[in-house]
Amino acid sequence: VTTDTISPTRVRLLEAAADLFYRHGPQVGVDAVCRTAGVSKRSAYQMFDSKEDLLAAGLEYRTSAYLGYLFPREGDDQSPAEQILHVFRRLEKLSGSAAYRGCPFVAAAVEVRDPLDPTSVAARRAKDLLTAFFQTRAAEAGAADPEVLARRLTFVFDGGSAFVAVQARDLDGAAVDMAREVLSQAGLL
Amino acid sequence: VTTDTISPTRVRLLEAAADLFYRHGPQVGVDAVCRTAGVSKRSAYQMFDSKEDLLAAGLEYRTSAYLGYLFPREGDDQSPAEQILHVFRRLEKLSGSAAYRGCPFVAAAVEVRDPLDPTSVAARRAKDLLTAFFQTRAAEAGAADPEVLARRLTFVFDGGSAFVAVQARDLDGAAVDMAREVLSQAGLL
Repeated sequence: VTTDTISPTRVRLLEAAADLFYRHGPQVGVDAVCRTAGVSKRSAYQMFDSKEDLLAAGLEYRTSAYLGYLFPREGDDQSPAEQILHVFRRLEKLSGSAAYRGCPFVAAAVEVRDPLDPTSVAARRAKDLLTAFFQTRAAEAGAADPEVLARRLTFVFDGGSAFVAVQARDLDGAAVDMAREVLSQAGLL
Repeated sequence: VTTDTISPTRVRLLEAAADLFYRHGPQVGVDAVCRTAGVSKRSAYQMFDSKEDLLAAGLEYRTSAYLGYLFPREGDDQSPAEQILHVFRRLEKLSGSAAYRGCPFVAAAVEVRDPLDPTSVAARRAKDLLTAFFQTRAAEAGAADPEVLARRLTFVFDGGSAFVAVQARDLDGAAVDMAREVLSQAGLL
Protein backbone atom coordinates (compact mmCIF):
# COMPACT_ATOMS: atom_id res chain seq x y z
CA VAL A 1 0.00 0.00 0.00
CA THR A 2 1.50 3.33 -1.03
CA THR A 3 0.91 6.46 1.04
CA ASP A 4 -1.64 8.00 -1.28
CA THR A 5 -4.00 5.04 -0.90
CA ILE A 6 -4.21 5.37 2.91
CA SER A 7 -7.79 6.27 3.79
CA PRO A 8 -8.80 7.94 7.09
CA THR A 9 -10.55 4.71 8.07
CA ARG A 10 -7.39 2.74 7.51
CA VAL A 11 -5.37 5.25 9.53
CA ARG A 12 -7.83 5.03 12.45
CA LEU A 13 -7.56 1.24 12.39
CA LEU A 14 -3.74 1.31 12.28
CA GLU A 15 -3.53 3.81 15.14
CA ALA A 16 -5.95 1.80 17.27
CA ALA A 17 -4.15 -1.47 16.48
CA ALA A 18 -0.75 0.01 17.40
CA ASP A 19 -2.05 1.56 20.64
CA LEU A 20 -3.93 -1.47 21.88
CA PHE A 21 -1.17 -3.87 20.87
CA TYR A 22 1.39 -1.88 22.86
CA ARG A 23 -0.94 -1.61 25.85
CA HIS A 24 -2.35 -5.15 25.88
CA GLY A 25 -0.17 -7.38 23.73
CA PRO A 26 -1.01 -9.74 20.86
CA GLN A 27 -4.10 -11.16 22.55
CA VAL A 28 -5.87 -7.85 21.86
CA GLY A 29 -9.08 -8.56 19.91
CA VAL A 30 -10.04 -7.26 16.49
CA ASP A 31 -13.36 -6.28 18.13
CA ALA A 32 -11.58 -3.96 20.55
CA VAL A 33 -9.47 -2.45 17.77
CA CYS A 34 -12.56 -1.84 15.62
CA ARG A 35 -14.47 -0.34 18.56
CA THR A 36 -11.62 2.06 19.37
CA ALA A 37 -11.22 3.00 15.71
CA GLY A 38 -14.96 3.37 15.15
CA VAL A 39 -14.74 1.01 12.16
CA SER A 40 -16.93 -2.02 11.48
CA LYS A 41 -15.35 -5.45 11.65
CA ARG A 42 -16.55 -6.06 8.12
CA SER A 43 -14.62 -3.01 6.85
CA ALA A 44 -11.56 -4.07 8.84
CA TYR A 45 -11.55 -7.52 7.27
CA GLN A 46 -11.92 -5.94 3.84
CA MET A 47 -8.65 -4.13 4.46
CA PHE A 48 -6.72 -6.81 6.39
CA ASP A 49 -6.73 -10.56 5.89
CA SER A 50 -6.17 -11.41 9.55
CA LYS A 51 -5.54 -10.00 13.01
CA GLU A 52 -1.83 -10.71 12.48
CA ASP A 53 -1.80 -8.55 9.35
CA LEU A 54 -3.63 -5.74 11.14
CA LEU A 55 -1.24 -5.75 14.10
CA ALA A 56 1.81 -5.91 11.83
CA ALA A 57 0.49 -3.03 9.72
CA GLY A 58 -0.18 -1.02 12.90
CA LEU A 59 3.41 -1.53 14.08
CA GLU A 60 4.76 -0.63 10.64
CA TYR A 61 2.59 2.48 10.51
CA ARG A 62 3.92 3.61 13.91
CA THR A 63 7.55 2.96 13.06
CA SER A 64 8.15 6.24 11.25
CA ALA A 65 6.47 8.31 13.99
CA TYR A 66 8.44 6.50 16.69
CA LEU A 67 11.77 6.79 14.89
CA GLY A 68 10.88 10.36 13.91
CA TYR A 69 10.64 11.12 17.62
CA LEU A 70 13.99 9.46 18.37
CA PHE A 71 16.00 10.84 15.45
CA PRO A 72 17.20 14.44 15.12
CA ARG A 73 15.51 16.60 12.49
CA GLU A 74 16.71 16.32 8.90
CA GLY A 75 19.34 18.97 8.30
CA ASP A 76 20.31 19.05 11.98
CA ASP A 77 23.80 20.58 12.06
CA GLN A 78 25.02 18.83 15.21
CA SER A 79 28.01 16.47 14.87
CA PRO A 80 27.20 12.83 14.04
CA ALA A 81 28.10 11.83 17.63
CA GLU A 82 25.73 14.45 19.03
CA GLN A 83 23.02 13.20 16.67
CA ILE A 84 23.52 9.73 18.12
CA LEU A 85 23.29 11.13 21.65
CA HIS A 86 20.05 12.85 20.65
CA VAL A 87 18.44 9.39 20.35
CA PHE A 88 19.49 8.53 23.90
CA ARG A 89 18.25 11.87 25.25
CA ARG A 90 14.87 11.05 23.68
CA LEU A 91 14.92 7.60 25.27
CA GLU A 92 15.66 9.24 28.64
CA LYS A 93 12.67 11.52 28.10
CA LEU A 94 10.41 8.60 27.11
CA SER A 95 11.54 6.69 30.20
CA GLY A 96 9.95 9.37 32.37
CA SER A 97 6.51 8.79 30.85
CA ALA A 98 4.17 6.39 32.66
CA ALA A 99 2.89 5.14 29.28
CA TYR A 100 6.39 4.04 28.20
CA ARG A 101 7.08 0.40 29.01
CA GLY A 102 10.19 -0.18 26.94
CA CYS A 103 10.86 -0.34 23.21
CA PRO A 104 7.69 -1.31 21.32
CA PHE A 105 9.69 -3.26 18.73
CA VAL A 106 11.43 -5.42 21.30
CA ALA A 107 8.11 -5.87 23.13
CA ALA A 108 6.44 -6.97 19.89
CA ALA A 109 9.14 -9.55 19.16
CA VAL A 110 9.06 -10.85 22.73
CA GLU A 111 5.28 -11.13 22.83
CA VAL A 112 4.62 -12.51 19.36
CA ARG A 113 7.49 -15.03 19.65
CA ASP A 114 7.26 -16.58 16.16
CA PRO A 115 10.07 -14.81 14.24
CA LEU A 116 8.20 -15.36 10.95
CA ASP A 117 4.99 -13.70 12.12
CA PRO A 118 4.50 -10.45 10.12
CA THR A 119 4.61 -8.42 13.34
CA SER A 120 8.01 -9.92 14.28
CA VAL A 121 9.26 -9.12 10.78
CA ALA A 122 8.02 -5.51 11.12
CA ALA A 123 9.65 -5.24 14.57
CA ARG A 124 12.98 -6.52 13.24
CA ARG A 125 12.90 -4.06 10.33
CA ALA A 126 12.12 -1.17 12.66
CA LYS A 127 14.96 -2.09 15.02
CA ASP A 128 17.30 -2.45 12.04
CA LEU A 129 16.45 1.14 11.04
CA LEU A 130 17.64 2.33 14.45
CA THR A 131 20.88 0.35 14.15
CA ALA A 132 21.36 1.64 10.58
CA PHE A 133 20.98 5.22 11.83
CA PHE A 134 23.72 4.61 14.41
CA GLN A 135 25.93 2.96 11.79
CA THR A 136 25.57 5.78 9.23
CA ARG A 137 26.37 8.45 11.83
CA ALA A 138 29.27 6.38 13.21
CA ALA A 139 30.71 6.08 9.67
CA GLU A 140 30.28 9.82 9.09
CA ALA A 141 32.19 10.47 12.32
CA GLY A 142 35.02 8.22 11.10
CA ALA A 143 34.51 5.29 13.50
CA ALA A 144 36.99 2.44 12.95
CA ASP A 145 34.19 -0.14 12.92
CA PRO A 146 30.79 1.54 12.44
CA GLU A 147 28.97 -1.81 12.39
CA VAL A 148 30.27 -2.95 15.77
CA LEU A 149 29.73 0.51 17.25
CA ALA A 150 26.14 0.58 15.96
CA ARG A 151 25.41 -2.81 17.49
CA ARG A 152 26.83 -1.67 20.83
CA LEU A 153 24.75 1.48 20.78
CA THR A 154 21.69 -0.67 20.03
CA PHE A 155 22.57 -2.82 23.07
CA VAL A 156 22.69 0.33 25.22
CA PHE A 157 19.36 1.48 23.81
CA ASP A 158 17.67 -1.89 24.36
CA GLY A 159 19.32 -2.40 27.75
CA GLY A 160 18.03 1.01 28.79
CA SER A 161 14.55 0.16 27.49
CA ALA A 162 14.59 -3.14 29.38
CA PHE A 163 15.54 -1.25 32.56
CA VAL A 164 12.42 0.91 32.19
CA ALA A 165 10.23 -2.15 31.59
CA VAL A 166 11.63 -4.10 34.56
CA GLN A 167 12.18 -1.33 37.10
CA ALA A 168 9.20 0.80 36.09
CA ARG A 169 11.21 3.96 36.67
CA ASP A 170 13.11 6.43 34.54
CA LEU A 171 16.70 6.07 33.40
CA ASP A 172 17.96 9.14 35.27
CA GLY A 173 20.73 9.71 32.73
CA ALA A 174 22.12 6.16 32.75
CA ALA A 175 21.52 5.45 29.05
CA VAL A 176 22.86 8.75 27.76
CA ASP A 177 25.90 8.45 30.07
CA MET A 178 26.72 4.98 28.81
CA ALA A 179 26.17 5.97 25.16
CA ARG A 180 28.53 8.91 25.70
CA GLU A 181 31.13 6.55 27.17
CA VAL A 182 30.81 4.15 24.23
CA LEU A 183 31.18 7.02 21.73
CA SER A 184 34.10 8.44 23.66
CA GLN A 185 35.95 5.10 23.77
CA ALA A 186 35.45 4.80 20.01
CA GLY A 187 37.09 8.23 19.62
CA LEU A 188 33.89 9.97 18.47
CA LEU A 189 33.62 12.40 21.39
CA VAL B 1 7.03 -21.32 51.83
CA THR B 2 10.39 -22.66 52.95
CA THR B 3 12.24 -25.26 50.88
CA ASP B 4 11.36 -28.22 53.10
CA THR B 5 7.64 -27.71 52.58
CA ILE B 6 7.89 -27.98 48.76
CA SER B 7 6.02 -31.10 47.69
CA PRO B 8 6.65 -32.93 44.38
CA THR B 9 3.19 -31.80 43.24
CA ARG B 10 4.03 -28.19 43.92
CA VAL B 11 7.35 -28.53 42.08
CA ARG B 12 5.62 -30.01 39.02
CA LEU B 13 3.15 -27.12 39.02
CA LEU B 14 5.92 -24.52 39.35
CA GLU B 15 7.98 -26.09 36.55
CA ALA B 16 4.96 -26.29 34.25
CA ALA B 17 3.91 -22.73 35.08
CA ALA B 18 7.42 -21.38 34.38
CA ASP B 19 7.76 -23.33 31.10
CA LEU B 20 4.37 -22.45 29.68
CA PHE B 21 4.61 -18.82 30.82
CA TYR B 22 7.93 -18.41 29.00
CA ARG B 23 6.63 -20.15 25.90
CA HIS B 24 3.15 -18.62 25.71
CA GLY B 25 3.04 -15.54 27.95
CA PRO B 26 0.63 -14.50 30.70
CA GLN B 27 -2.48 -15.60 28.80
CA VAL B 28 -1.48 -19.23 29.48
CA GLY B 29 -4.36 -20.99 31.21
CA VAL B 30 -4.34 -22.68 34.61
CA ASP B 31 -5.93 -25.66 32.80
CA ALA B 32 -2.89 -26.03 30.54
CA VAL B 33 -0.49 -25.70 33.47
CA CYS B 34 -2.39 -28.35 35.45
CA ARG B 35 -2.53 -30.68 32.44
CA THR B 36 1.22 -30.38 31.84
CA ALA B 37 1.95 -30.86 35.54
CA GLY B 38 -0.50 -33.77 35.91
CA VAL B 39 -2.15 -31.99 38.83
CA SER B 40 -5.87 -31.37 39.34
CA LYS B 41 -7.12 -27.80 39.19
CA ARG B 42 -8.60 -28.28 42.63
CA SER B 43 -5.18 -29.14 44.07
CA ALA B 44 -3.61 -26.21 42.22
CA TYR B 45 -6.10 -23.77 43.74
CA GLN B 46 -5.46 -25.25 47.18
CA MET B 47 -1.82 -24.25 46.75
CA PHE B 48 -2.21 -20.94 44.88
CA ASP B 49 -4.86 -18.27 45.30
CA SER B 50 -4.86 -17.19 41.65
CA LYS B 51 -3.21 -17.67 38.27
CA GLU B 52 -1.11 -14.58 38.99
CA ASP B 53 0.25 -16.18 42.16
CA LEU B 54 1.00 -19.44 40.34
CA LEU B 55 2.87 -17.68 37.51
CA ALA B 56 4.81 -15.48 39.96
CA ALA B 57 5.76 -18.53 42.05
CA GLY B 58 6.87 -20.35 38.88
CA LEU B 59 9.14 -17.45 37.90
CA GLU B 60 10.53 -17.24 41.44
CA TYR B 61 11.16 -20.97 41.50
CA ARG B 62 13.08 -20.76 38.23
CA THR B 63 15.17 -17.79 39.26
CA SER B 64 17.78 -19.77 41.18
CA ALA B 65 18.19 -22.35 38.41
CA TYR B 66 18.48 -19.63 35.77
CA LEU B 67 20.96 -17.55 37.76
CA GLY B 68 22.77 -20.74 38.76
CA TYR B 69 23.34 -21.37 35.06
CA LEU B 70 24.60 -17.82 34.45
CA PHE B 71 26.84 -17.47 37.51
CA PRO B 72 30.18 -19.22 37.99
CA ARG B 73 30.34 -22.00 40.57
CA GLU B 74 30.82 -21.05 44.22
CA GLY B 75 34.50 -21.12 45.03
CA ASP B 76 35.46 -20.41 41.43
CA ASP B 77 39.01 -19.06 41.57
CA GLN B 78 38.84 -16.87 38.44
CA SER B 79 39.30 -13.13 38.89
CA PRO B 80 36.13 -11.10 39.59
CA ALA B 81 36.28 -9.67 36.04
CA GLU B 82 36.48 -13.19 34.57
CA GLN B 83 33.54 -14.23 36.74
CA ILE B 84 31.57 -11.36 35.25
CA LEU B 85 32.58 -12.45 31.73
CA HIS B 86 31.40 -15.96 32.59
CA VAL B 87 27.83 -14.62 32.73
CA PHE B 88 28.18 -13.19 29.21
CA ARG B 89 29.70 -16.41 27.89
CA ARG B 90 26.64 -18.22 29.24
CA LEU B 91 24.35 -15.68 27.58
CA GLU B 92 26.19 -16.26 24.29
CA LYS B 93 25.63 -19.99 24.73
CA LEU B 94 21.94 -19.51 25.52
CA SER B 95 21.58 -17.28 22.45
CA GLY B 96 22.43 -20.26 20.26
CA SER B 97 19.48 -22.27 21.58
CA ALA B 98 16.24 -22.17 19.58
CA ALA B 99 14.27 -22.24 22.86
CA TYR B 100 15.93 -19.03 24.11
CA ARG B 101 13.94 -15.92 23.24
CA GLY B 102 15.62 -13.38 25.48
CA CYS B 103 15.79 -12.89 29.22
CA PRO B 104 12.74 -14.47 30.92
CA PHE B 105 12.66 -11.73 33.58
CA VAL B 106 12.53 -8.90 31.05
CA ALA B 107 9.96 -10.85 29.03
CA ALA B 108 7.81 -11.31 32.15
CA ALA B 109 7.90 -7.59 32.98
CA VAL B 110 7.14 -6.64 29.36
CA GLU B 111 4.25 -9.09 29.05
CA VAL B 112 2.62 -8.65 32.45
CA ARG B 113 2.90 -4.82 32.26
CA ASP B 114 1.47 -3.95 35.70
CA PRO B 115 4.61 -3.30 37.81
CA LEU B 116 2.71 -4.27 40.97
CA ASP B 117 1.64 -7.70 39.67
CA PRO B 118 3.44 -10.40 41.72
CA THR B 119 5.13 -11.70 38.54
CA SER B 120 6.56 -8.24 37.77
CA VAL B 121 7.82 -8.02 41.34
CA ALA B 122 9.48 -11.45 41.02
CA ALA B 123 11.02 -10.42 37.67
CA ARG B 124 12.43 -7.21 39.15
CA ARG B 125 13.92 -9.09 42.12
CA ALA B 126 15.52 -11.65 39.80
CA LYS B 127 17.04 -8.97 37.58
CA ASP B 128 18.29 -7.13 40.68
CA LEU B 129 20.13 -10.31 41.72
CA LEU B 130 22.01 -10.26 38.41
CA THR B 131 22.91 -6.59 38.84
CA ALA B 132 23.95 -7.26 42.45
CA PHE B 133 26.26 -10.06 41.28
CA PHE B 134 27.93 -7.64 38.84
CA GLN B 135 28.21 -4.99 41.54
CA THR B 136 29.77 -7.31 44.13
CA ARG B 137 32.36 -8.59 41.66
CA ALA B 138 33.05 -5.07 40.39
CA ALA B 139 33.67 -3.91 43.98
CA GLU B 140 35.96 -6.91 44.63
CA ALA B 141 37.94 -5.95 41.53
CA GLY B 142 38.33 -2.41 42.86
CA ALA B 143 36.06 -0.61 40.36
CA ALA B 144 35.80 3.14 41.00
CA ASP B 145 32.00 3.02 40.81
CA PRO B 146 30.70 -0.56 41.13
CA GLU B 147 27.07 0.57 41.01
CA VAL B 148 27.39 2.37 37.68
CA LEU B 149 29.51 -0.44 36.24
CA ALA B 150 26.91 -3.05 37.34
CA ARG B 151 24.12 -1.10 35.69
CA ARG B 152 26.11 -0.83 32.47
CA LEU B 153 26.82 -4.54 32.47
CA THR B 154 23.10 -5.17 32.99
CA PHE B 155 22.40 -2.94 29.95
CA VAL B 156 24.80 -5.05 27.89
CA PHE B 157 23.15 -8.24 29.14
CA ASP B 158 19.62 -6.99 28.42
CA GLY B 159 20.62 -5.41 25.12
CA GLY B 160 22.15 -8.72 24.07
CA SER B 161 19.01 -10.57 25.17
CA ALA B 162 16.84 -8.13 23.21
CA PHE B 163 19.01 -8.75 20.14
CA VAL B 164 18.27 -12.48 20.38
CA ALA B 165 14.53 -11.85 20.79
CA VAL B 166 14.34 -9.40 17.86
CA GLN B 167 16.81 -10.96 15.42
CA ALA B 168 16.10 -14.59 16.31
CA ARG B 169 19.78 -15.43 15.92
CA ASP B 170 22.75 -15.91 18.20
CA LEU B 171 25.00 -13.17 19.53
CA ASP B 172 28.13 -14.44 17.81
CA GLY B 173 30.39 -12.96 20.51
CA ALA B 174 28.88 -9.46 20.48
CA ALA B 175 27.75 -9.45 24.13
CA VAL B 176 30.94 -10.90 25.57
CA ASP B 177 33.03 -8.51 23.43
CA MET B 178 31.12 -5.47 24.65
CA ALA B 179 31.23 -6.66 28.29
CA ARG B 180 35.00 -7.10 27.95
CA GLU B 181 35.28 -3.56 26.56
CA VAL B 182 33.20 -2.14 29.43
CA LEU B 183 35.34 -3.98 32.01
CA SER B 184 38.52 -2.93 30.28
CA GLN B 185 37.52 0.76 30.20
CA ALA B 186 36.75 0.53 33.91
CA GLY B 187 40.28 -0.78 34.45
CA LEU B 188 39.15 -4.27 35.48
CA LEU B 189 40.80 -6.15 32.61
